[in-house]
Amino acid sequence: MFREKIKVFDCTIRDGGLMNNHKFDDRFVREVYKALSLAGVDYMEIGYKNSRKLFSPKEYGKWKFCDDSDIKEVVKGIKSNTKISVMVDVGRVDMDDVKPKKESPVTMVRVASYVKDIDKAIYMVNSFADKGYETTINIMAISKALDNELNEALHQIEKESKAQVVYIVDSFGALYQETTEFLVKKFKSILKTKEVGMHAHNNQQLAFGNTIEAIIHNANYVDATVYGLGRAAGNCPLELLIGFLKNPKYDIRPILDLISKEFIPLSGKLEWGYVIPYAIAGMLDKHPKSAMALRNSDKKENYREFYETMVSEDLEN
Amino acid sequence: MFREKIKVFDCTIRDGGLMNNHKFDDRFVREVYKALSLAGVDYMEIGYKNSRKLFSPKEYGKWKFCDDSDIKEVVKGIKSNTKISVMVDVGRVDMDDVKPKKESPVTMVRVASYVKDIDKAIYMVNSFADKGYETTINIMAISKALDNELNEALHQIEKESKAQVVYIVDSFGALYQETTEFLVKKFKSILKTKEVGMHAHNNQQLAFGNTIEAIIHNANYVDATVYGLGRAAGNCPLELLIGFLKNPKYDIRPILDLISKEFIPLSGKLEWGYVIPYAIAGMLDKHPKSAMALRNSDKKENYREFYETMVSEDLEN
Repeated sequence: MFREKIKVFDCTIRDGGLMNNHKFDDRFVREVYKALSLAGVDYMEIGYKNSRKLFSPKEYGKWKFCDDSDIKEVVKGIKSNTKISVMVDVGRVDMDDVKPKKESPVTMVRVASYVKDIDKAIYMVNSFADKGYETTINIMAISKALDNELNEALHQIEKESKAQVVYIVDSFGALYQETTEFLVKKFKSILKTKEVGMHAHNNQQLAFGNTIEAIIHNANYVDATVYGLGRAAGNCPLELLIGFLKNPKYDIRPILDLISKEFIPLSGKLEWGYVIPYAIAGMLDKHPKSAMALRNSDKKENYREFYETMVSEDLEN
Repeated sequence: MFREKIKVFDCTIRDGGLMNNHKFDDRFVREVYKALSLAGVDYMEIGYKNSRKLFSPKEYGKWKFCDDSDIKEVVKGIKSNTKISVMVDVGRVDMDDVKPKKESPVTMVRVASYVKDIDKAIYMVNSFADKGYETTINIMAISKALDNELNEALHQIEKESKAQVVYIVDSFGALYQETTEFLVKKFKSILKTKEVGMHAHNNQQLAFGNTIEAIIHNANYVDATVYGLGRAAGNCPLELLIGFLKNPKYDIRPILDLISKEFIPLSGKLEWGYVIPYAIAGMLDKHPKSAMALRNSDKKENYREFYETMVSEDLEN
């Protein structure tokens, strides 16, 4: 009944790190890794591999840089089949910081790229693949991609890159099922030798629904985060995804414990999830940064004014 | 581009009333009616028409009974094209309490029924239709309906009832898109002379996604509630639905104001929405009553124990 090829990819610490400058302490990260391992989750993305020349370690926590030594320390002694992933952004990584796979606790490197940067992403992915890593290209802001440019990028990825997986990234939480279906079918039709992945944001409470939609149309790599933690509205909740999938290797119980013990307390300190300004940003296909700024202001519940401002931006284009 | 036949049906006060024994004060209900009217919402369901022989007016607020005089008072002086609806449950209404349409502020009566009670529902609907009302049959707990019994019920409704609309009611928030598609197609194929409606619950954050799915497959009556207010996990958020629909007659702004001014304060007093025990009930296809009891106990965050209890119930069958 289940589809064995489906891989559950947790990015709680990586996407959640966008809400606290990646300042999760080791104890918390270990608890997440333990629970994911017990739950049978296939991958855990632990953070970004960013250059210290671009970001200050004074301002950001260690999971903005993901040194191999820090990763080794945090997973030490935990029995696990969950593979570790790190994300790199085009133009923000020192390529030499990524050591050969055989020296590293990392299994997968995911390259996040806009369509316009696909040439750079392919170069990077091939370099990481040559070092022995599993690799993906994650095409961000897909709801803004023009069809002809996306087509060209996908053909180029298929022809030139060693990425095993290419992700649809709904950065703005703007997709509905029909466009998700359209995109997954397009990706599948062009990327004959690669798997398709789905990374959804939850602005319109559609992250889980769009992930199911992607699965229906044969995406096999699906991103989720514990209790939906992630930037702004957050992501597809891992507990719902595991509740949905039929593969008996997945166990929801350790994730339920983790939410009880760690994420309910955290939800009192960080704000993520369904908040109206994030919903507005999603339905207008906008970056969440203005909504996040609003939530840190004394106008945090002034929804109409925020809506009018967002709509006006477009009218003034 | 838009489909004119789609009707947006708000049931904030009716479904939300299940969370406070229908004790919304008149001011609040007027604010909701004003905002829905300005937003162009087609219907507002204001409560249940229950018998006072079965429910005590001491225990329940006026929207448990929906006297015509109370409705007239609360809508008085508000300019509106939004039609008023009331819901009745099979076996809980004094049929004589429902006066002829021409004497009443109510336009639509919706009969909520399980599959096994369809004979009674048809009798009731036909009686209300003869009194001049628009009518619907809302088939509850659809995720528990056996296919042969559901088929028989639908054929009977098509043949014998005067209902204009027949609703799929996902009482337990258990449906995924594939089953939603299956059900809407089944309803459409049997109910040749009727419209199909969708009433979703949000246990698994799929109420909006399933409502879109139903629209894709030609359901034209779609239920929603302001900020998702409703029993337990609540319903499809009206603001998201209006953000999605293309018909220019709908305006999201009055709903945004209503949420800012009325629903954010309310959310500090009542608990509804995405809460893990409701999600567990949804994924296990269970009534939310056990989860609601848990949330009122000192074990409210004991998710694993609750999960094990829910699973054990089935194993002991």
